Amino acid sequence: MASSPQVVVATRLWVGASLGEGEIIPATASQSHYLRNVLKISEGGRIAVFNGSDGEWLAEVRFSARKGCSLLLIALARPQVVEEGPWLLFAPVKKYRLDFLVQKSVELGVEVICPVQTRRTIVRRVAKKRILANAIEAAEQCGRLTLPKVAEFSPLSEVILSWQPGRTLFWGDESGGGVPALRAFGSDLTKAAFLIGPEGGFEESEREFLTAQSFTKAIDLGPRILRSDTAGLMALSLWEGARG
Amino acid sequence: MASSPQVVVATRLWVGASLGEGEIIPATASQSHYLRNVLKISEGGRIAVFNGSDGEWLAEVRFSARKGCSLLLIALARPQVVEEGPWLLFAPVKKYRLDFLVQKSVELGVEVICPVQTRRTIVRRVAKKRILANAIEAAEQCGRLTLPKVAEFSPLSEVILSWQPGRTLFWGDESGGGVPALRAFGSDLTKAAFLIGPEGGFEESEREFLTAQSFTKAIDLGPRILRSDTAGLMALSLWEGARG
Repeated sequence: MASSPQVVVATRLWVGASLGEGEIIPATASQSHYLRNVLKISEGGRIAVFNGSDGEWLAEVRFSARKGCSLLLIALARPQVVEEGPWLLFAPVKKYRLDFLVQKSVELGVEVICPVQTRRTIVRRVAKKRILANAIEAAEQCGRLTLPKVAEFSPLSEVILSWQPGRTLFWGDESGGGVPALRAFGSDLTKAAFLIGPEGGFEESEREFLTAQSFTKAIDLGPRILRSDTAGLMALSLWEGARG
Repeated sequence: MASSPQVVVATRLWVGASLGEGEIIPATASQSHYLRNVLKISEGGRIAVFNGSDGEWLAEVRFSARKGCSLLLIALARPQVVEEGPWLLFAPVKKYRLDFLVQKSVELGVEVICPVQTRRTIVRRVAKKRILANAIEAAEQCGRLTLPKVAEFSPLSEVILSWQPGRTLFWGDESGGGVPALRAFGSDLTKAAFLIGPEGGFEESEREFLTAQSFTKAIDLGPRILRSDTAGLMALSLWEGARG
């Protein structure tokens, strides 16, 4: 049974190429390094690859003469499925907290990651490449077949004003005006987005603006002052748990 | 109203000394550095202090001739309350992941932090001092009046065999045998503990051992493979959310 596509393959790599039987995909330099030197995989060793649209494939590792390696696609292991999940809008936090938030959000099933600029947001530049790298690493590890979409860093007002109705935006109201999150969710657990403010909280005008929208609901995440990243992870955990 | 103890004081410091009106408490070297050089607080500036048992006090910062400073306790701002919360038992993860898990657990209300050694636990030594430092920082920030207790790093079997009945131990069963967490909680939301296994999961014998105990319930934390720290944060989030 070792050659069955059902065999559990722990190493999963996201690749940019399209996938199909017999295709040979060159690994990137860092993937080659990882397979060769970190995992010390042998010639012909098996891993899984996915690209977000063609399912997960069992692949054989082939080393080339120099440092590189390529991946020969053997068989489809899991067909592609649509992976719907909550969206996360957040005032970006700094470096390693952002890495962590992205990684954990991906594990918790986030479908769209959208950094937004609020009045009190201090961070002025968001490294989309870094978000993507963290998302890929987490998706490889947690067994997802898709990566989240990463939106451009945009002003909160712009994101809200271009909102497509049909998705509820739950925003963390640290002033205590919200409904406990699990109660706020109600019974329709299909389309949610969460908005987490910056460390200093939303400004009053932002809170009024959010409250005025028909698709928003203020939520309460408990009695303590949560860091932004904790609040984001808690909201996503609650959504995932409620869908349980 | 500036001198009222009700005034919002953002800076909170945990101190080891006992607290009472008129007491003068020497700040530690790192607290002095923080107050002087990071916050650039002025002589007579106000902060809050707490020690886990005497409530939260409004204190005046007094600088001494050299680098140090001391804190003059002015008035009780919040009386001490008992802060009950879930316990977290976990196979320790490495350095910065551990820091993060501890910080977030404290924000999520954890009462006892208990690192346990499972069969597949790779980490052999747990720096209790480092856990405490992270717990203090998070407690100062999130508004808690207590620190969590940090238990000694002990073998899982020892912790389980000396368990005091009356507290349910929910353990993350990554084999899929558990009940979705929110359903497993039931209606009694008073005394819970969570047990999160190591990256490689529990061994079969450990799972049998856990299942055999009367006070345990296996829980399911969703379809993806969560890192240990994510699983811990999700479990605590769900508990906190359910108590909402």
